[in-house]
Amino acid sequence: MTPAEINLVGYIAAACTTLCWLPQAVRAIRTRDTAAISLWTQGLFAIGIVFWLIYGVLAASWPVVISNVVALPLVLVVIAMKIRYG
Amino acid sequence: MTPAEINLVGYIAAACTTLCWLPQAVRAIRTRDTAAISLWTQGLFAIGIVFWLIYGVLAASWPVVISNVVALPLVLVVIAMKIRYG
Repeated sequence: MTPAEINLVGYIAAACTTLCWLPQAVRAIRTRDTAAISLWTQGLFAIGIVFWLIYGVLAASWPVVISNVVALPLVLVVIAMKIRYG
Repeated sequence: MTPAEINLVGYIAAACTTLCWLPQAVRAIRTRDTAAISLWTQGLFAIGIVFWLIYGVLAASWPVVISNVVALPLVLVVIAMKIRYG
């Protein structure tokens, strides 16, 4: 496979693991119910996203960079809702 | 930075976004409460993990591969609990 084709697989992956946080953020805002959500999971995930971002830049892996730039604010919304509503 | 140093950043990222799913899976199993969790988020995330796995293999990015191999079963546990307890 060419690098462009490999990156295409990465972009599909990035679209899934990025856009997936939208329904969770919307649900948390709408229902104000975050009881079942683990703050450890969301917090550690947010820290991980920052490290993936650094890795993506260093490795010049644009699917990794773009994915994590978009996912970070969505995950931060979930964390904010979790802290607010418990 | 050397490729080894770049990969180290990737492994830290991978450890965070992989191990983070453990407290969510444990919480779902213990409390049987998954009401606040979005099935769309978890389902799309699981599909994304599979694509990241393929990307990681094709791009020979081992932090990506290992991270997603470990994360997949943990996310599947959360999905199974969500389907079971709603």
